[in-house]
Amino acid sequence: MSPATVSRSLGALAVQFGCRLQGDPDIVVSSVATLDGGGSSLGFAANPAYREQLRTTRLAAVIVDERLAADCPVAALVHANPHATFARIAAFLHPAPTVVPGVHATAVVHPSAQVDATAAVAAFAVIGAGARIGPRCHVAEHCIVGPGVTLGADTTLRERVTVCSAVQVGSRCILHPGAVIGSDGFGNAADGGQWVKVPQLGSVRIGDDVEIGANTTIDRGALGDTIIEAGVRLDNQIQIAHNVVVGAHTAIAACTGIAGSTTIGRRCMIGGGAGIGGQLSIGDDIVIAGFGMVTRSLEKPGMYSSVMPVEEARLWRRLVGRFKRLDLLAGRVRKLEAAGLGATTGQDDDN
Amino acid sequence: MSPATVSRSLGALAVQFGCRLQGDPDIVVSSVATLDGGGSSLGFAANPAYREQLRTTRLAAVIVDERLAADCPVAALVHANPHATFARIAAFLHPAPTVVPGVHATAVVHPSAQVDATAAVAAFAVIGAGARIGPRCHVAEHCIVGPGVTLGADTTLRERVTVCSAVQVGSRCILHPGAVIGSDGFGNAADGGQWVKVPQLGSVRIGDDVEIGANTTIDRGALGDTIIEAGVRLDNQIQIAHNVVVGAHTAIAACTGIAGSTTIGRRCMIGGGAGIGGQLSIGDDIVIAGFGMVTRSLEKPGMYSSVMPVEEARLWRRLVGRFKRLDLLAGRVRKLEAAGLGATTGQDDDN
Amino acid sequence: MSPATVSRSLGALAVQFGCRLQGDPDIVVSSVATLDGGGSSLGFAANPAYREQLRTTRLAAVIVDERLAADCPVAALVHANPHATFARIAAFLHPAPTVVPGVHATAVVHPSAQVDATAAVAAFAVIGAGARIGPRCHVAEHCIVGPGVTLGADTTLRERVTVCSAVQVGSRCILHPGAVIGSDGFGNAADGGQWVKVPQLGSVRIGDDVEIGANTTIDRGALGDTIIEAGVRLDNQIQIAHNVVVGAHTAIAACTGIAGSTTIGRRCMIGGGAGIGGQLSIGDDIVIAGFGMVTRSLEKPGMYSSVMPVEEARLWRRLVGRFKRLDLLAGRVRKLEAAGLGATTGQDDDN
Repeated sequence: MSPATVSRSLGALAVQFGCRLQGDPDIVVSSVATLDGGGSSLGFAANPAYREQLRTTRLAAVIVDERLAADCPVAALVHANPHATFARIAAFLHPAPTVVPGVHATAVVHPSAQVDATAAVAAFAVIGAGARIGPRCHVAEHCIVGPGVTLGADTTLRERVTVCSAVQVGSRCILHPGAVIGSDGFGNAADGGQWVKVPQLGSVRIGDDVEIGANTTIDRGALGDTIIEAGVRLDNQIQIAHNVVVGAHTAIAACTGIAGSTTIGRRCMIGGGAGIGGQLSIGDDIVIAGFGMVTRSLEKPGMYSSVMPVEEARLWRRLVGRFKRLDLLAGRVRKLEAAGLGATTGQDDDN
Repeated sequence: MSPATVSRSLGALAVQFGCRLQGDPDIVVSSVATLDGGGSSLGFAANPAYREQLRTTRLAAVIVDERLAADCPVAALVHANPHATFARIAAFLHPAPTVVPGVHATAVVHPSAQVDATAAVAAFAVIGAGARIGPRCHVAEHCIVGPGVTLGADTTLRERVTVCSAVQVGSRCILHPGAVIGSDGFGNAADGGQWVKVPQLGSVRIGDDVEIGANTTIDRGALGDTIIEAGVRLDNQIQIAHNVVVGAHTAIAACTGIAGSTTIGRRCMIGGGAGIGGQLSIGDDIVIAGFGMVTRSLEKPGMYSSVMPVEEARLWRRLVGRFKRLDLLAGRVRKLEAAGLGATTGQDDDN
Repeated sequence: MSPATVSRSLGALAVQFGCRLQGDPDIVVSSVATLDGGGSSLGFAANPAYREQLRTTRLAAVIVDERLAADCPVAALVHANPHATFARIAAFLHPAPTVVPGVHATAVVHPSAQVDATAAVAAFAVIGAGARIGPRCHVAEHCIVGPGVTLGADTTLRERVTVCSAVQVGSRCILHPGAVIGSDGFGNAADGGQWVKVPQLGSVRIGDDVEIGANTTIDRGALGDTIIEAGVRLDNQIQIAHNVVVGAHTAIAACTGIAGSTTIGRRCMIGGGAGIGGQLSIGDDIVIAGFGMVTRSLEKPGMYSSVMPVEEARLWRRLVGRFKRLDLLAGRVRKLEAAGLGATTGQDDDN
């Protein structure tokens, strides 16, 4: 089975998506594809690195910017931002399956919950007391929407999402399967060699247009809320601890963990597998490369890294050995300096 | 909607929780808050670093230790362990919602399972053959309790927890949404370029007072059991491989992975994102800093680290380059030594 | 409760599994155990490192290779590959519980779905429109099989697996609890400081004999499919991004993440907690040690590592300080060389 697609002429697409058309306006496209595709598909090239591939494409048409327009051997939709335009046209040509409003017979909806008449609640979903499901929301199979939760308009919970009590989710959000929003933060007080659980009394507030990946977990605040601002994009298997704030339009790749009470600024980009310590402040427009480990606050915009790339294991072991003997090597340099040359160096980085 | 809270006078709280009261015993508090809160809330300050914040608080009262009591501008509950006392009073003032005993109409309970009459089993829960659910347990929505599983008294499975066959869970445990306990360990035997699955025939035994975070996974043993001792605290998205033993009262922060057959001692603290290799022995009272990578057994109590914090990417790349040329740098030092100064250094860390 | 086991004589096992028997063929074994077990159990020793333990075993019999046969104090099943033979005999002696074919009364199966009459679909499972469930498949409790999904013969979805629309799963696969297959990839186009979602229009294709661990996530392709070839073994909490290809018989340990559009070769072994960047090509027969961070393509077979093992925190901090001052140390060496010895070194690694 194949989902329905939409067909449209390039002329109509150019008007609808604000592109300059180079070529025959009557060519009809009905799907999107990569540059090595063909048939009636539309692709895109956003980067001069793809110039050679563009020159040999057999697609029906390609979305390009002005830099690449002259190299497009087929019809072109020319736009300053080919990637975003591709995203929008792809969504238009491949619409998501229609969701029929209504509550599935197997769903368990608390009598005090308010489910908008235009919303869809699928099989085995559970909607708790006092929850409010906004217009055109889609709560997919096996989702659990806890007591007092609110979902704004047009928000989608894909399969098996758990939203714990009192969490607020904005409009037009997408939460992917297995995500857990509002579970208890990791609060433990030491007492005589044992741990006393610290009640987690805050909640989670998620802004509009947020996307949250599969099996990602976002803990509720201890006191006060964990906050995900508007437009944030979280990939799969991310862990957001209690009382973290993630600023608007920040994107975080998979497997990253952010420890408690840390604030991340706006428009940050954080690579996969990164780790950010607790109680830090990360400013706006900061980029953390994948696998980066952040242990102090960062204020200055720019890119930060701490990735140590793999080497052949034998070489790596030798390098680690060298690293662990850096004290000795520094000591040898110091002795060399002391033995007659020290006066010329003037600097000593030992401490 | 807002969960019910309890109101109590400071005099009553001081008696109930063993505090010295400094101030008016008739002041009534009904919630907990951070030091910047106000109204009828109670906060805490456990650390002299918060002295300045304490001095300007507008809370009704604050839990402090003797060091900070003189700096508290409002009423104080004085206790040697303000954090643990705060945890206990917070749980008292903000009691968890009452769970009504009984099995939800939609739950599927095998006829041979024993569910205590005081336990609650929520919508769409599945209880397998021969499983035993102890007194006052709460099995929340969508939980799966496999055949032969036992849950001790007062244990809570939050939403969507999966406990596979024959796993034993102690009393007063809390398992958070999405946790998977007792899935197969990763056992594979190589055979002619392919893998043969090694049956995972053990189980998982979890002691009393254990808390397990959202989407955390604990594999069953291959032969013999994976063991989580009493009082252990596991955060979200932790992976515990087959036949691991985690000693009593050890706390492990989110996103940490522990490979097969490793034993962790008692009262350890393991930071987030750490990785511990297989077949190792980690002693009691060992602290692993966040992101630490443990590749050998550790016996001596103390703190261990291997975190390499981020730097600006350009500087980082230069440092990595330096690191990867450490052999050359050491060679240059050796030549300098050989060229006339070697006799004075006497030590050579090359090998 | 204890699952049923099978009893067999060593003579019968030797014939069935192609072993040379050393000892009494009439000895009957009915379970497997580690070398320190006893009774009527069968163990294995695949490595001379276990020679001493083997010599004192009280098992009924042990599977060994010829190198260890002489050291076995009890009956021995001698085979060139003791581990794989153990795996096969263990599966034979401890058969998985029988699954009764049929669809549970609570399961929701779309009328257009085809469920083979020999397949079992458990409580609260959801089977979408047009899905096809092959012979002898087992879809356990709370699984969601999306529209258009196909499961080959003898494939098992353990509890609470989510397989999103149009994903193809081969025969004899095992997917463990909480796995999410075919959720959206992380596709975002920047547009004026905000993100536009890029529709994820591909799917996931999984070959035969693949095993996928608990809470592992595999994203669907953006255009084209994410591909997991035959015989691949994925442990728990692995993240596979969109359009990744994992080659046949590759095994990946827990908590590893692979970024988008990367191709992994055949028969690779990737340790736990590793991270592999996007758009890379990793050749066949490559081994990545645990915690390895791969940021470039690797072609040459062999083992690669970048693990930095923990040290006592005080020492570690000093080493990191040394590392961050490597520029200064190199500068001091350069000055020493320039001060009279530079001519003798000839090489300078500075740049």
